[in-house]
Amino acid sequence: WEGEFFTGIPKIKYEGRSSKNPLAFKWYNAEEEVLGKKMKDWFRFSVAFWHTFRGTGGDPFGAPTKHWPWEDGTNSLKMAKRRMRANFEFIDKLGVDFWCFHDRDIAPDGQTLEEANQNLDEVVALANELQTKSKKKVLWGTAQLFMHSRYMHGGATSSELEVYAYAAAQVKKAMEVTHYLGGENYVFWGGREGYQSLLNTDMERELNHLATFLQAAVRHKKKIGFNGTLLIEPKPQEPTKHQYDWDAATTANFLRKYGLTEEFKLNIECNHATLSGHSCHHELETARINGMLGNIDANTGDPQVGWDTDQFLIDIPEATMIMLTVIKNGGIAPGGFNFDAKLRRESTDVEDLFIAHIVGMDTMARGLKNAAKLIEDGSLAELVRKRYESFDTNLGAQIENGEADFELLEKKVKEMDEPNVASAKQELAELIFQSAL
Amino acid sequence: WEGEFFTGIPKIKYEGRSSKNPLAFKWYNAEEEVLGKKMKDWFRFSVAFWHTFRGTGGDPFGAPTKHWPWEDGTNSLKMAKRRMRANFEFIDKLGVDFWCFHDRDIAPDGQTLEEANQNLDEVVALANELQTKSKKKVLWGTAQLFMHSRYMHGGATSSELEVYAYAAAQVKKAMEVTHYLGGENYVFWGGREGYQSLLNTDMERELNHLATFLQAAVRHKKKIGFNGTLLIEPKPQEPTKHQYDWDAATTANFLRKYGLTEEFKLNIECNHATLSGHSCHHELETARINGMLGNIDANTGDPQVGWDTDQFLIDIPEATMIMLTVIKNGGIAPGGFNFDAKLRRESTDVEDLFIAHIVGMDTMARGLKNAAKLIEDGSLAELVRKRYESFDTNLGAQIENGEADFELLEKKVKEMDEPNVASAKQELAELIFQSAL
Amino acid sequence: WEGEFFTGIPKIKYEGRSSKNPLAFKWYNAEEEVLGKKMKDWFRFSVAFWHTFRGTGGDPFGAPTKHWPWEDGTNSLKMAKRRMRANFEFIDKLGVDFWCFHDRDIAPDGQTLEEANQNLDEVVALANELQTKSKKKVLWGTAQLFMHSRYMHGGATSSELEVYAYAAAQVKKAMEVTHYLGGENYVFWGGREGYQSLLNTDMERELNHLATFLQAAVRHKKKIGFNGTLLIEPKPQEPTKHQYDWDAATTANFLRKYGLTEEFKLNIECNHATLSGHSCHHELETARINGMLGNIDANTGDPQVGWDTDQFLIDIPEATMIMLTVIKNGGIAPGGFNFDAKLRRESTDVEDLFIAHIVGMDTMARGLKNAAKLIEDGSLAELVRKRYESFDTNLGAQIENGEADFELLEKKVKEMDEPNVASAKQELAELIFQSAL
Amino acid sequence: WEGEFFTGIPKIKYEGRSSKNPLAFKWYNAEEEVLGKKMKDWFRFSVAFWHTFRGTGGDPFGAPTKHWPWEDGTNSLKMAKRRMRANFEFIDKLGVDFWCFHDRDIAPDGQTLEEANQNLDEVVALANELQTKSKKKVLWGTAQLFMHSRYMHGGATSSELEVYAYAAAQVKKAMEVTHYLGGENYVFWGGREGYQSLLNTDMERELNHLATFLQAAVRHKKKIGFNGTLLIEPKPQEPTKHQYDWDAATTANFLRKYGLTEEFKLNIECNHATLSGHSCHHELETARINGMLGNIDANTGDPQVGWDTDQFLIDIPEATMIMLTVIKNGGIAPGGFNFDAKLRRESTDVEDLFIAHIVGMDTMARGLKNAAKLIEDGSLAELVRKRYESFDTNLGAQIENGEADFELLEKKVKEMDEPNVASAKQELAELIFQSAL
Repeated sequence: WEGEFFTGIPKIKYEGRSSKNPLAFKWYNAEEEVLGKKMKDWFRFSVAFWHTFRGTGGDPFGAPTKHWPWEDGTNSLKMAKRRMRANFEFIDKLGVDFWCFHDRDIAPDGQTLEEANQNLDEVVALANELQTKSKKKVLWGTAQLFMHSRYMHGGATSSELEVYAYAAAQVKKAMEVTHYLGGENYVFWGGREGYQSLLNTDMERELNHLATFLQAAVRHKKKIGFNGTLLIEPKPQEPTKHQYDWDAATTANFLRKYGLTEEFKLNIECNHATLSGHSCHHELETARINGMLGNIDANTGDPQVGWDTDQFLIDIPEATMIMLTVIKNGGIAPGGFNFDAKLRRESTDVEDLFIAHIVGMDTMARGLKNAAKLIEDGSLAELVRKRYESFDTNLGAQIENGEADFELLEKKVKEMDEPNVASAKQELAELIFQSAL
Repeated sequence: WEGEFFTGIPKIKYEGRSSKNPLAFKWYNAEEEVLGKKMKDWFRFSVAFWHTFRGTGGDPFGAPTKHWPWEDGTNSLKMAKRRMRANFEFIDKLGVDFWCFHDRDIAPDGQTLEEANQNLDEVVALANELQTKSKKKVLWGTAQLFMHSRYMHGGATSSELEVYAYAAAQVKKAMEVTHYLGGENYVFWGGREGYQSLLNTDMERELNHLATFLQAAVRHKKKIGFNGTLLIEPKPQEPTKHQYDWDAATTANFLRKYGLTEEFKLNIECNHATLSGHSCHHELETARINGMLGNIDANTGDPQVGWDTDQFLIDIPEATMIMLTVIKNGGIAPGGFNFDAKLRRESTDVEDLFIAHIVGMDTMARGLKNAAKLIEDGSLAELVRKRYESFDTNLGAQIENGEADFELLEKKVKEMDEPNVASAKQELAELIFQSAL
Repeated sequence: WEGEFFTGIPKIKYEGRSSKNPLAFKWYNAEEEVLGKKMKDWFRFSVAFWHTFRGTGGDPFGAPTKHWPWEDGTNSLKMAKRRMRANFEFIDKLGVDFWCFHDRDIAPDGQTLEEANQNLDEVVALANELQTKSKKKVLWGTAQLFMHSRYMHGGATSSELEVYAYAAAQVKKAMEVTHYLGGENYVFWGGREGYQSLLNTDMERELNHLATFLQAAVRHKKKIGFNGTLLIEPKPQEPTKHQYDWDAATTANFLRKYGLTEEFKLNIECNHATLSGHSCHHELETARINGMLGNIDANTGDPQVGWDTDQFLIDIPEATMIMLTVIKNGGIAPGGFNFDAKLRRESTDVEDLFIAHIVGMDTMARGLKNAAKLIEDGSLAELVRKRYESFDTNLGAQIENGEADFELLEKKVKEMDEPNVASAKQELAELIFQSAL
Repeated sequence: WEGEFFTGIPKIKYEGRSSKNPLAFKWYNAEEEVLGKKMKDWFRFSVAFWHTFRGTGGDPFGAPTKHWPWEDGTNSLKMAKRRMRANFEFIDKLGVDFWCFHDRDIAPDGQTLEEANQNLDEVVALANELQTKSKKKVLWGTAQLFMHSRYMHGGATSSELEVYAYAAAQVKKAMEVTHYLGGENYVFWGGREGYQSLLNTDMERELNHLATFLQAAVRHKKKIGFNGTLLIEPKPQEPTKHQYDWDAATTANFLRKYGLTEEFKLNIECNHATLSGHSCHHELETARINGMLGNIDANTGDPQVGWDTDQFLIDIPEATMIMLTVIKNGGIAPGGFNFDAKLRRESTDVEDLFIAHIVGMDTMARGLKNAAKLIEDGSLAELVRKRYESFDTNLGAQIENGEADFELLEKKVKEMDEPNVASAKQELAELIFQSAL
C-alpha cells in the first residue's frame, strides 16, 4: 500500500455552524480562543490507535465487520507499519495532535518476549519518524495485559508468579518506548486486575501484589528518566466481575493505602464512570478534589445497557459539565482528551471513522463554549457561593479550621432559634445551566 | 398499657430442624458452640428499634399500615416509654442480647434542643433501668440527622452553618447517652450527607466540613471517656442521589485523606452493598482487608429493585459467605449483627415481627454452620492456597517484599518458557461451597 | 385566604431566548406555529395537582419540607377548596390550559365512601366553577388506589374481595367526576397492582381480576356516556417489586389477552420508561406502533438511581426525540403533556414551583423546534428510508405481504452473491440529529 | 483422534450426599422418582453444543483460553466430526439424554449456501448415526443468525432484503436437519433482531418483517411435517441495545399482535430474565400463565453485572422456585432443561466441563426435591389459597365471571364496614420456603 489511505477524505476544516458537510467541523475551531486558551490546548485531543485501527467490529456474538481496504488480513510487521502510516494520515487529516497506543496494538506479539520487543522496536522507530515529520505526539502509551491468554488471571494480580514477571517485563518495555516517543503520560488500565469470584481469590494478596508492581513501575520510571505522569484508569467491572480500580474513590483509597498518591493520577473514562454507578461529572469532580485528575477518556455508554459500549460522546449537556470541571482544574495538561471510543459494529464505511471523531470533537467544543458562557455569566457560581455563605463568617472559619468543638456548637444552638434553611434552588440552577446550551 | 405486650408469644426456643413451629428456632441455638465459640457470641444479634418499633409501613406512595395494639397514635413521652418497655419484652422473648437506636426514635423531639434532650434523658433513664433488669445491652446508638426538615441539605455537610451546629449538638448528646447506656459502639450514618445535583453543590467544601465534624466527634469521644468504636455506615444513594459514604472503599479513602483511619471502622450493610454495585461479601472483605470491619447490618435488598428494601436476609449461601469473612476476621466483637431490617409493608400481624427475626437468625445460624463446615473441611482454603503457591518461593518473597525490580523480572522472563497458567477452578470452588449448604 | 396566592409572581410571558428572567419563557411561545400547529396545541400542557399542590417533600427518610403559605396544616374541606383556587391561579399564571388530579388529592377522604364522595362533590363543584371562569380543562382524572392502607395489596388485584369492591366504587365515582368536569381522558395507574413476592401471590388470579375490573370500567364509561379515552400508565416497579403494567409491551400484551385493545391507550411516563430498562423514546415508539400512544407524562428520572424521582425533564436531546414521535403520531390529542414531576425536596420557595414548570415547558418547546428542524431538513428520514430500500421492490412487497415462502427465498439466495450489507451510518444519524440541537 | 476423548473421566454416577468426589452426583439420581416421575423425566437435561464444544474463552478483551486436546486449530469438516464424537462421549459420560445445537456450531460454514448445507449434511449424518447408537436425542436445533457479518443488522429484521432471504434459507435448512435428527423443538433466538439506535431504525417495519418471517417458518414446518414445538427465546439486550424479544410479556405481545400464539412457545433463560429486570421465577410464571412455557435454559447471571454471563446455576433457592413452576406446569416436556451455560473463561481443565455440569444438575435436583417437599407439605399453597378465599364466594364468582358491575360493587361497599385487610404473611411464606431447603 503506497500513498494515501483515506482517498477522497480531505483535511477536516472548520466550516462553522451553518455547514451541512458531515466532513467538516461546525464548532471545533482549533485556533479559536476560549477563556484565554486555544481550543486545541484545552482539549489536546488524541486518537486511540486500538479502536480506530484495530477495532474489528467483533463482539461476543459476532465476527468482525470492518474490512478496511488497507488491511491484508494478517498481523504481520509489514501490516503493522502500514497501519501506523494510516494512523498518521488519519490524525493529520482530522487535525488532532496526539495519539495513544497499547504495545500489542501497534506491533505483532512474538513467540518470545525478545521477539515481541523487537517487533515493537521496529514499529516504534517508524512511529518516531512519522512523529518527527508531522509534529504529532504520543499522549500516552500503555501495555496490553489482558488480551493474551497468559493474563487470564490478571497481570500484576495473577495467581501465577511467572505471569506477574511477564507483566513487569512488558510494562518495562512499554514505558521505555513511550519515553522514547516522547509520550507525556503512561497509563495503567487493569484489564484483568480483579476477580471473577471471591471463592477462589485471595483479594488481599492480589492487592499487595498490585502495589509492589506499581511501586516497581515508579522506580523504573525514575531510573529511565521518564518524566511523564503515571495514570490509573478506573473501571468497575468487565471483563472481570470486579475490577480493583472500581472508581476514582476506590483507586484513590488504594493509592493512599500503599503510599502512591504522589506518583499517580487518574484517567477518568465517562463510560467507566456510569458503569460504576456515577455520573461522569461526579468521577471527574472526585478526581479533581482528590488532586488526581490527570486525563479524560472522552466517550460515553448507553444508560440502558450494562457493558462498556465506548461510544463517541454526543451529549452536549454532559460535555458542558465535563468542561466545567476541566476549567476549574485549570486545564487537563499534560493529560488530554483521548477518544477511547469506537464506531458501532454496524458502521463500516471508512468515512464513518471521520464522522464519529468529528461529532465527538464538535460535542466537546460545544461543551467548552457552553461552560465558558456559564463561567462568564457567573450566576451559577454565584448561586453556589451564596448557598454556603453562612460559613464565610468567624464561626465558619473556626469550623473549617477544626477549632469548633461540640460544646461550642451546642452552646451556639442553645442561643439560636430553629435554623433558617434556604431552598437549594436546584431547578433554578438547571435553568441557568440550560440557558447556556 | 400495663403488663405484657406480646401476649400469646412465648419465649422463642430452639426446637431443632424438624420443628414446624414458626415461633421457634430450627437452627439458631444460642449456647451451641461452633468453632469454639457460642453462637450468640459469634453474632451478638441486635434488634433495630427504628424498624421494629417505629416502622409504620408508610412508603412514598402509601400511608402507614401497622397498627400495633400498644400504640396510642401519639408521639408522646408516655408512648415513648411504653414502646421502650415493649422493646425489652421483644428482645427478651426473642433471646437477643442487644438493641440499637437513633436518638429521635426512642424519644420525642422537642421545640428546642433542650426539650429534646430532656425527653431523651427520660427515656434513656427508663432504658437503663430495663437494661439493668434484663442484662440487655446497647450495641450502638446514633443520631437521626435526616428526618427533620432542617437536615434537608445534610447535617455535617449542610450548606447552612446553623444546621452543622445543630447536628454537632445532637451528635454530642447521642454519644453521651450511648455512653451512659454502656453502648459498645457509636454509628454515623450520613443519611443526607451527599448531594442531589452537582450543579448547586460545593462537594469539596462539604467533604471538608464532614471531616472537621468527625474530628470533633473523636475529640468529644475522648473527652467523655467513651471507649466504644466509632463506625461509619456506607451507603451509595437514597435519599440523596450520591451519598459521600458510597461504599467501603470510598469511605476508606475519605478516612485516609483526613487522617481518621485510627478512629473509625465500618458498619457494612448488605442492602447498601448491593445498591453500590457490589456483593455483600465484597464489601465485607474490602472492609476486612482494610482493617475496618466493625459491624454488620444484616439485611438484604431485592436484586431487581433499585432502592433500599431492608429485608431480612434469608439467603443461606449469602449468609455462608458473610460468615466466612467474619470467621476470618476472628469474629465481629465489639460489633455485632444488627437487624437493620423491616417487615414488608403488607405484613401487619404482631407475630410477623417475631417470624421475621426468627428466619433472619436461623439464616445466619445456617450460614455459620455451613462456613464452619467449609473451614473444617479445608478443601476450599486449600484450593485458594494452591492457586498462589508460585509466590511461596524465594522470588515470590522478593516480590512481596518490594525488592523485585523490573530488570530482575524481565531477566526471569527471558530465562523461562511461556508461563503455565492453571485453571481457576471456579466451578470446583462452587461445588465445594455448595456441598456445605 | 382571600385574593392572590402567588403574590409577586406575574403571568409568565414569552420573552425570547435572550431573556435572563427566570420567570419568563425563553422558548415556549404558546401561539407560535410550528409545522402548522400552535405550540400550545402540540403540547396541551397540564399541571399535576398532586405534585404541585400536595407534594410535601416527604421521603422515606424525611419529613415534609414544603410549607406553602396558603396551607393551614389541615386536610379539611376548606383547605381543599383553598388549594383548588391556588391551582387555578397557578395554571393561569403559568399559561397552561389543563390540569390532572387524583380524587383523594383534591378532596379529603371520609369515614365512609359516602362522606368521601360528598367531599369530592363539593370540591369538584368549585373546580367546575373555576373552570368555567378560566376556560381551563381537565386533561384527565384518576382514582388514588394506593395511598390508603386498605389498598396495601392492590385495588383491583387485592387478595381481599371487599377491597376490590371498594376500588370499583372509587373508580366509578372518579370516572363520574372526571366526566362532570369535561375531562378528556381517564387514567388507570396501578399503584399497587403487582406483587412483592411470588411466594405468597397467585399472579394469574390477580391478573384475571384486573381484567374483569377494567372490563367493568369500560361498561361503566359507556353507561354514563363518557367519551374520553381510557389510559393505562405503565410502570415497572415501585411501590411493588413488580407492577403488572411493567412497560408498554407488557401492558399491550395484557390488553390483547383480555380483548381490551379497542378500549385503552397508554400514558407513557419517561421516568417509568427508564426504570423499566428502556429509553423514553423506545416506550413512546412502542406505544405508537401498537396504536396505543395516548398521553405523555413529561418527566425524567436519574440514570444513576433506581427509583422514581419524577424530575422535570431538562434534557433537550430527549425532548427532541419525544417530539419526533409525537409529530409522527400526528400529535397527542386528546391526550397531552402532563407534568407528572415534582420539585426536589430541597426546593422550598414558592417561585421554585414556577421555575420548574418554566424550564420543563421551555425544554419541550426546544424539543419541538429541533424536531421540526429535523423533519423540515429531511436528511434523517432520508437516511432511514434508504436503509430499507431493498424492500421497496417486487420481492420486498411479496415478503411484506406474507407471500414469500422459504423455498422462494432459498432459491433467491442460490442465485445471488453474498449480500452487500451497507453501513448503518449511526454516527452520521447522530451528527444530523445533533445539528438540529 | 481415535478412541476416547475424556480419558480418565468415568461415567458420572450418583454417589449420594456424603460423597466428596467432584466427578459424581450427590443429588441427581436419574432413575429416582419424585412426585411420581423420574428425575430424568422432570428435567430432560440437554448439553449445549456451542458452549461446551465451541466455547473458546474469548471475550471482548481477550483471546481464547481453552485448548482442548482434541482441537487441531481448524474449523474443518474433519474437526467438526471429531467434535461431534466428543459431544456424544460427553453426554454419555454425563448421563444426559439430549443435546442442542446451532447449525454453524456443528459444521463449518461454506463459501456458498450450498457448500454450507453440504457440510451440515455430512455432520448431521454422523450425528444421526451416533444418536442411533447411543439413544441420545436432539432437544432442539436452531440457526445461528448473528455471528456472520452479513447478519450485523439482524436476520429477519435486517434492513437488507438479501439478508432476510439468506436468513430464511438458513432457517429452512436448520429446521430440516432438526427434523431429520428427530429434534423435539426448534428455537428462534433473535441474536440481532433488535436495534442499536432508534435514530436510524424503522422499528415498525422491522417488526412486520419479523412476523412475516415467523409466519413463513410455520408454513415450512407444516410442509415438511415437523411436529416439534417452535420456541422463541426472549432476551432484552446484548448484542443489540434493544432486542425485540425483550422478555416473556413483550414476546407474548408480539405473538398476539401477529396471530402467532398457537404456533409458538417460549424458551425462558434465567440470565436473560434477570437482564430484563425480572427474577427468573417471574419470567417462568409469566410464560406459564400465558400458556407459553416451552423450555428452560438453565443458567444464571451475576446480579452485579449487566451482561450475559451464562453461568451454571448454583443457587438452590432459585432452583427450587424454578421447579415449583415446572411442577405447576405439569412438567416441561416436550421441552427440557438445556444447559445454556459455559465455563468461566479461566476454567481450562477438561474436567471443569464435567464439574460444571455436575454442579448444575445437582442444583436442579436439589431444587426439585425441595419443591416436592413444599408441595407435599402443602402449607405454602395453603397460605396462598387462604389469602384469596374472599373470592371463593358467590360475589367472588360473579366478579370472576365478569358479571359484577360497578353499581353492584358500590352498593356492596355502602353496606359493608371498612374492609378487613389481612397480613400478607410474606415472612412466614419465606420461612416455610426456607424450611424446605
